[in-house]
Amino acid sequence: MKLSRLLRLRSLFYSSYEKRLAASIKHMVGSKPFNLSLYKLAIKHAAAAEETVNGMKISNERLEYLGDAVLGAVVAEFLFIKYPFRDEGFLTETRSRMVNREALNHIAIKLGLSKIIEEEYRGKNVGTHKSIYGDALEAMVGAVYLDRGYEFCKKFILRRIIIHFDLDSIINTTTNFKSKVIEWSQKENSSVDFRTVSIDGSQRFKEFVVELLINNEPVATGKGATKKKAEQEAAKNACEILNIAV
Amino acid sequence: MKLSRLLRLRSLFYSSYEKRLAASIKHMVGSKPFNLSLYKLAIKHAAAAEETVNGMKISNERLEYLGDAVLGAVVAEFLFIKYPFRDEGFLTETRSRMVNREALNHIAIKLGLSKIIEEEYRGKNVGTHKSIYGDALEAMVGAVYLDRGYEFCKKFILRRIIIHFDLDSIINTTTNFKSKVIEWSQKENSSVDFRTVSIDGSQRFKEFVVELLINNEPVATGKGATKKKAEQEAAKNACEILNIAV
Repeated sequence: MKLSRLLRLRSLFYSSYEKRLAASIKHMVGSKPFNLSLYKLAIKHAAAAEETVNGMKISNERLEYLGDAVLGAVVAEFLFIKYPFRDEGFLTETRSRMVNREALNHIAIKLGLSKIIEEEYRGKNVGTHKSIYGDALEAMVGAVYLDRGYEFCKKFILRRIIIHFDLDSIINTTTNFKSKVIEWSQKENSSVDFRTVSIDGSQRFKEFVVELLINNEPVATGKGATKKKAEQEAAKNACEILNIAV
Repeated sequence: MKLSRLLRLRSLFYSSYEKRLAASIKHMVGSKPFNLSLYKLAIKHAAAAEETVNGMKISNERLEYLGDAVLGAVVAEFLFIKYPFRDEGFLTETRSRMVNREALNHIAIKLGLSKIIEEEYRGKNVGTHKSIYGDALEAMVGAVYLDRGYEFCKKFILRRIIIHFDLDSIINTTTNFKSKVIEWSQKENSSVDFRTVSIDGSQRFKEFVVELLINNEPVATGKGATKKKAEQEAAKNACEILNIAV
């Protein structure tokens, strides 16, 4: 705790830019930052990173990796407690829909993180990398975790991030990747077929491997405990590979 | 804290089976369990779960989902701090090697969790599901987290689980999936080819999609920022699909 107090003293010597940033962080996180440099790093996207003398790039990617893991754990517990009678398949699927880049991007904009980043990048040629805000939000979670510890970070995630999710709609809109691929193929005048590649396992634990073919060319594969699940998985992968909007 | 004390009082009324289990847990986790029923659940594999009246199966799968997330976060932070100059690609890869089923299976055996489970299943026809111990270890992490909170669980993971990893060998043995597939194909008298399906993205962010063909039949696809990485990814997927030991 002593170190964090010393870091707070640093705030007496903040530049006007740092004062503004600290105030924005306070608004967003709910408390003044102890170690502002963590937050400064969190808003530094790889595309805007300066190279240091020895050729290393300092960007928010490491913080993003950490934040992603912490966010995953907190969301996992949140769903675990909220849905005591649902199985782990439902929980895993719901979690992956919540922590995907697109959803986080929206929340980053709602939280005002996008504004902080835009100011940071003003005048720099960063280009438009579409998940820049979602990435920064994950990095911000990593920064809060390192700055204030797990319990504080968990509260931040529950009160300021998860609150923005419309859980009912997330759960009810089961994205049907199969139908997305079929829609797409009709526009493109292509054929879509599924082919079972292999079936593994015992009676209890089966694993189907299914291949998705477009115009008889294999595009993606998927695995699952049922043929239907494997097809969905293959269709999902195909959507990614073919850049089909879902 | 009061609730946990009340739960401790329960230990006065433990059956002899519960007493033995509580003692084993204490050995493994480093402290007496507050809520023994969590740990009882953690060692109940889906294949051995009894059905309740309303057709639901009570097993450790939900706890496994939670434990997996918590373990991921703790390992992420451990690597983040241990390797301050490595990029997030290295950290992600190392983490996924550490928390894979096979590695966790070995550690569960070292920790003695396998013995607890074997005793639990004695006389039941469970069959041999190979990742049963690793699954139970993840569920155990989930149980420790719910029973004792994040900080205690983190210490448990760092002192009792991570300590068993031979990090140097994990990092140095970069599994070369490509060569594994080629080795396998020579045994099987099959041909292996890679075909680039698409190249996406701007100059800064490129994404290659590569397909792996065996005997001119596509088996798996992979994506990556370089052609080499995409090929490795495709080979990795092929190893999974074809059940090639790595």
